[in-house]
Amino acid sequence: MKRPLILVTNDDGISAPGIRNLIRIMNDFGDVFVVAPDGPQSGMGHAITIEATIRCDKIIIDQGPQIEYSCSGTPVDCVKLAVNQLLSRKPDLCVSGINHGSNSSINVIYSGTMSAAVEGALEGIPSIGFSLLDFSHNADFTEAEKYIRKITKSVLKDGMDSGVCLNVNIPKVIKGKTIKGTKVCRQANANWEEEFEERKDPKGRTYYWLTGKFVNYDKGTDTDEWALSNHYVSVVPVQFDVTAHHSISKLNKIISYE
Amino acid sequence: MKRPLILVTNDDGISAPGIRNLIRIMNDFGDVFVVAPDGPQSGMGHAITIEATIRCDKIIIDQGPQIEYSCSGTPVDCVKLAVNQLLSRKPDLCVSGINHGSNSSINVIYSGTMSAAVEGALEGIPSIGFSLLDFSHNADFTEAEKYIRKITKSVLKDGMDSGVCLNVNIPKVIKGKTIKGTKVCRQANANWEEEFEERKDPKGRTYYWLTGKFVNYDKGTDTDEWALSNHYVSVVPVQFDVTAHHSISKLNKIISYE
Repeated sequence: MKRPLILVTNDDGISAPGIRNLIRIMNDFGDVFVVAPDGPQSGMGHAITIEATIRCDKIIIDQGPQIEYSCSGTPVDCVKLAVNQLLSRKPDLCVSGINHGSNSSINVIYSGTMSAAVEGALEGIPSIGFSLLDFSHNADFTEAEKYIRKITKSVLKDGMDSGVCLNVNIPKVIKGKTIKGTKVCRQANANWEEEFEERKDPKGRTYYWLTGKFVNYDKGTDTDEWALSNHYVSVVPVQFDVTAHHSISKLNKIISYE
Repeated sequence: MKRPLILVTNDDGISAPGIRNLIRIMNDFGDVFVVAPDGPQSGMGHAITIEATIRCDKIIIDQGPQIEYSCSGTPVDCVKLAVNQLLSRKPDLCVSGINHGSNSSINVIYSGTMSAAVEGALEGIPSIGFSLLDFSHNADFTEAEKYIRKITKSVLKDGMDSGVCLNVNIPKVIKGKTIKGTKVCRQANANWEEEFEERKDPKGRTYYWLTGKFVNYDKGTDTDEWALSNHYVSVVPVQFDVTAHHSISKLNKIISYE
């Protein structure tokens, strides 16, 4: 069998430890092609660059066999450029991450890492976003690696439902606690209770920093939040059809104008 | 009954004709509070500003009774700031738009306009994104206005399912053709076939412009694309739970590791 072609991207930027580890792992599975942002693009969601130009230049960062491009655009731009401009054939797999920090529950819609995976699915490529619940630059990826290898192998073998990608979150390494395994989950009903920090600049003008507290309203034991807090790897299938199908019949009664 | 409090935002920027028309219309329905981007934020999806500061300053643009703030952040930032920082009570309605151009089908995930409405829904506010299929600065909003008034009235009266907002797209005014009415729809299975335009800058370095062709793969007559091309206003209920529930049982067989 031909070696699979694997597209790698992220939202923390091409030099982040997370993507460097992911590239190293993926080199064992296939021919790796990297198109990743030239700097941090966290919280960029499904943003695309339509009002400005995009730079995308070949770069060599380490001694690995992968081919790499550093891109001025968003994570979604990176996937679009790779698939539609730089590659001559469609990748067999698209992986995004390893994100430094959680993309569980509602974070999926803010996350550049996950939006890149969703964009991969839109392009018809089996796609996975990997995140480790550890913001540290020196995060320990050893346990994560074991599960990334297992899940990658499964997806390369079995493919993915059309229109679906995976949101994989991995608990932080804690001494004396090993990961119990994987749980396929639904996205928990959780949200950020935002607070803005109001400050004055040197000229006395107001500006704000976004801060916030994550709150899980969901008591279910079938959610990603439950899995992670019980030290399982959470695997949520994610789709880009955002139609609330269950609301259609009710709306038909309320909104119906000639 | 107390006058409803209505939050208005958009992604084309606070001075765009679309939002000026929406503010004028909403002034008839309640007390209007505007927090909108200070410039174009199209294609920003669900991006939030986490690595930079946000400016948000009171501004007077016209003689209307509304209160307005111009914000340096994304459409989602605007909603978060309004609800969590600037307003003392939760709005009864959040409307976003009127977008200059379509947000039908897959555009919903790229759209700043729709992401603002989704953020409103996340905050527990009945929320609607309005878009007119006309990019022109001189777009004719007269027909759109009739439907915006009807739908706004319905939503203020009947509320919205929890976790759901509306994606309303309105056909362009074409002489001799009137809008036939509204259709509650699902998001069509359509996508952009991207092409990048490769250019050289004055120093000979490559850069790219994102371009693309919109392709509808969906033959269904229950989609937003069908409604719009048959000159109906499309109304799609949109949710932020992106779990592909139908994939969970299959994944449980494939991905299950101790």
